Amino acid sequence: MAADERGVTPQSENFSAWYNDLVVKAQLVDRGPAKGTMVIRPYGYRIWELLQAELDRRIKDTGHDNAYFPLFIPESYLRREAEHVAGFAPELAVVTHAGGKQLEEPLVVRPTSETIIGEMMAKWVSSYRDLPLLLNQWANVVRWELRPRVFLRTTEFLWQEGHTAHADEADARRETRLMLDTYEEVARDIAAIAVVTGEKTPGERFAGAVSTQTIEGMMRDGKALQSGTSHYLGENFARAFDIAYTDVSGERKLCHTTSWGMSTRMIGGVIMTHGDDKGLVLPPRLAPYQVVIVPIGRGEKGEAAVAAARELAGRIKAAGVRVHIDDRLQLSPGFKFNDWEMKGVPIRLELGPRDIEAGTVLMAKRLGAEGKQTLSLETVAQDLPKLLDEFQDYLLARATRFREDNTVGVDGWEHFTEAVGTGWARAFHCGEAKCEDEIKAATAATPRCVPFDGVSESGACVRCGTPSAYGKRVIFGRSY
Amino acid sequence: MAADERGVTPQSENFSAWYNDLVVKAQLVDRGPAKGTMVIRPYGYRIWELLQAELDRRIKDTGHDNAYFPLFIPESYLRREAEHVAGFAPELAVVTHAGGKQLEEPLVVRPTSETIIGEMMAKWVSSYRDLPLLLNQWANVVRWELRPRVFLRTTEFLWQEGHTAHADEADARRETRLMLDTYEEVARDIAAIAVVTGEKTPGERFAGAVSTQTIEGMMRDGKALQSGTSHYLGENFARAFDIAYTDVSGERKLCHTTSWGMSTRMIGGVIMTHGDDKGLVLPPRLAPYQVVIVPIGRGEKGEAAVAAARELAGRIKAAGVRVHIDDRLQLSPGFKFNDWEMKGVPIRLELGPRDIEAGTVLMAKRLGAEGKQTLSLETVAQDLPKLLDEFQDYLLARATRFREDNTVGVDGWEHFTEAVGTGWARAFHCGEAKCEDEIKAATAATPRCVPFDGVSESGACVRCGTPSAYGKRVIFGRSY
Repeated sequence: MAADERGVTPQSENFSAWYNDLVVKAQLVDRGPAKGTMVIRPYGYRIWELLQAELDRRIKDTGHDNAYFPLFIPESYLRREAEHVAGFAPELAVVTHAGGKQLEEPLVVRPTSETIIGEMMAKWVSSYRDLPLLLNQWANVVRWELRPRVFLRTTEFLWQEGHTAHADEADARRETRLMLDTYEEVARDIAAIAVVTGEKTPGERFAGAVSTQTIEGMMRDGKALQSGTSHYLGENFARAFDIAYTDVSGERKLCHTTSWGMSTRMIGGVIMTHGDDKGLVLPPRLAPYQVVIVPIGRGEKGEAAVAAARELAGRIKAAGVRVHIDDRLQLSPGFKFNDWEMKGVPIRLELGPRDIEAGTVLMAKRLGAEGKQTLSLETVAQDLPKLLDEFQDYLLARATRFREDNTVGVDGWEHFTEAVGTGWARAFHCGEAKCEDEIKAATAATPRCVPFDGVSESGACVRCGTPSAYGKRVIFGRSY
Repeated sequence: MAADERGVTPQSENFSAWYNDLVVKAQLVDRGPAKGTMVIRPYGYRIWELLQAELDRRIKDTGHDNAYFPLFIPESYLRREAEHVAGFAPELAVVTHAGGKQLEEPLVVRPTSETIIGEMMAKWVSSYRDLPLLLNQWANVVRWELRPRVFLRTTEFLWQEGHTAHADEADARRETRLMLDTYEEVARDIAAIAVVTGEKTPGERFAGAVSTQTIEGMMRDGKALQSGTSHYLGENFARAFDIAYTDVSGERKLCHTTSWGMSTRMIGGVIMTHGDDKGLVLPPRLAPYQVVIVPIGRGEKGEAAVAAARELAGRIKAAGVRVHIDDRLQLSPGFKFNDWEMKGVPIRLELGPRDIEAGTVLMAKRLGAEGKQTLSLETVAQDLPKLLDEFQDYLLARATRFREDNTVGVDGWEHFTEAVGTGWARAFHCGEAKCEDEIKAATAATPRCVPFDGVSESGACVRCGTPSAYGKRVIFGRSY
């Protein structure tokens, strides 16, 4: 059965249709009744739980505490930081009635929690001894999206949002970068997404931030996905909410705050970084099932194969691998192979009467040129962790190569438009917002970031020819 | 410093004021800006995370998958099940505007998710092979409360809600009881709350349920706290949302569904089951810090004590115990002792110059008649897991004795009113809703449950004298 017969448009034909078909067919999500909402089904939610566990551990290991702040924020809170409210006002969902009555002050359903957490920080911080205050929450947030897209832009999504307060700018900037580095590590080592890290240009900053840092992944259609951001907020929110402390010498000072977030959007990143015409390809560290065993055969021989699969699964589980046996009687092996390929399971093991007799098992990796391999039934369980690590490394290497192959340094406008048509361009830019807007209008590309690892260079703006800002090339690309 | 000097009303003086003072002073929560909302601070949230981990593991081990459903439910969904909407309508918060426009259909902020999950179940179930469908979600829900109370009744709270669909009544009823038993186990073995399990009378059922089972804990003021419920919903929601399947013989049948939930309310149960005038008393399995080490001494000797505390903490951590060193320089040992008593840490270790010289450490348990004990510095780390288990067992035994001492079998009305003034009454009841209402109006007591383990008995209704229903005595009490 070909991929399109299963109802998934081939990726090569229409990337966007492929994505929309796949998220539903692989049972990651279903559409919710309210505009732009999604139901995250068990297979999709398990990916999120695995990502959450990895990120939560790192957040705690770096000294942050989890807490929980209310969903409903008084509208007046948002208005206290002018840029912040300007950025978020068009996307707000508002509760006007509750308990059968109209509310005196409408309540905003949080789009992000800087304001309500700022209000609480002001209560909790009084001395330099209370700093740094390092908080994080796992929560749902709501932003009314005009063009919703499953995982990428949904009206409601799940995320963590870190919020911290510091005694001075240096400490807050260190924190901003530390959490960006944490996101980079999770994206690279867990999701196998070859992100680039850097600073957003002023026009692309978070509403209310002094500086926004980002990790940007390249999807297989050459577009960028902003996959996590970390903001240095300066004294902006501290001033609006009076987050202040008394320093060692008794002087009262404003705090410097940060915020940073990573969301269910990452699942979209995994799908679009690794997936192909056959369906999902999941990095082992995020795969609900890292290995699927398909027992082969009918009747008594089939039962023997299921029994052998159970015994093998027990040993694989003991080796610390997430394994699943597909013992659905009514389905053919061929159907099952396609099904688990669509669901992106890294390694499939086929186990039939002849294999059992020979003491072997047939292994098929979800990607790679090797084809099926015959392995020893006795040693396969202990070999799997290494095989899965290799698969994880292979995905990251492939994604890195893809990004490098599709990123080009360009100096002329024609070359620029060509480059951002299929990937990313590294180009000089004047730093003017108006010029950014013109580039976007002409090509749909925006500055993704000024990369941290870019070499020091200057030149003429690729669009307007005036001298470049930033002291290095900017990465431009179309984006989600 | 006495408890009241720290700003916590003694429990014996005013239980309700004690509770309200303590949740804030122990830094579990702070009040949120919108009416009835709470901020769960790191110390309180960590208790929730520990409870969550225990419950989530059991939910998964019994074959349920986590998923996530939208926060916003179209108003029309709730109206499809008549009893359900009647029960929840007065408590709903409603989004009427979003993205700068008035919505065509208002969206309800979920008070519970039977309706939206029912709608999705109808899409996902078609054959008997799809059953049982065993789902759970961890989420925030909103119910507009007239008399909010931190953890017990908040406008927004955190919980898990399980939702399952089954082929027949027997299987659904098995599930209902299995999850009630799971709640009982978590309450008893993790939270050390000596809950009674049983069936709610018809007047106390969940809106839309055929049968509601409950775990009820007795707080130290003699009131009951409903701490978890499990509902058999019959075909009510299956009919309203068309959750149906084709059975083996090809016939189309309605599913039988269940739902069950446990929430942050459990934290209130822990506080009111174990706490005393000095503050919280946390069961070790839910304590963010199971052991606190307070190094004693100033100057060089103080530094040596901190160094010894670090070495000891390393060994304690290696023994699998959550340990914290209180090395705050500006505070006296006495202040620290009071502080950790208020925060309910099960075991405190004091380590000063003389202890280090003698190779000992001073242990103070948060409860118990033993007083301080001198332990060997060398063996204390390996002894702590057992000491903590004993403390956990002690709390459960004490709570069980308290509940038994304050529960009496009564047959006359006068005796009944007396019993429910300080604890629970086991009494015969006619089963009529009107009679339940009269009892409530006269005494504030309601039927908490018909206990599963009650002996078969009949008699005259304690209020109206007509023959008793249920075939056993009902537990009555005032409740939160």
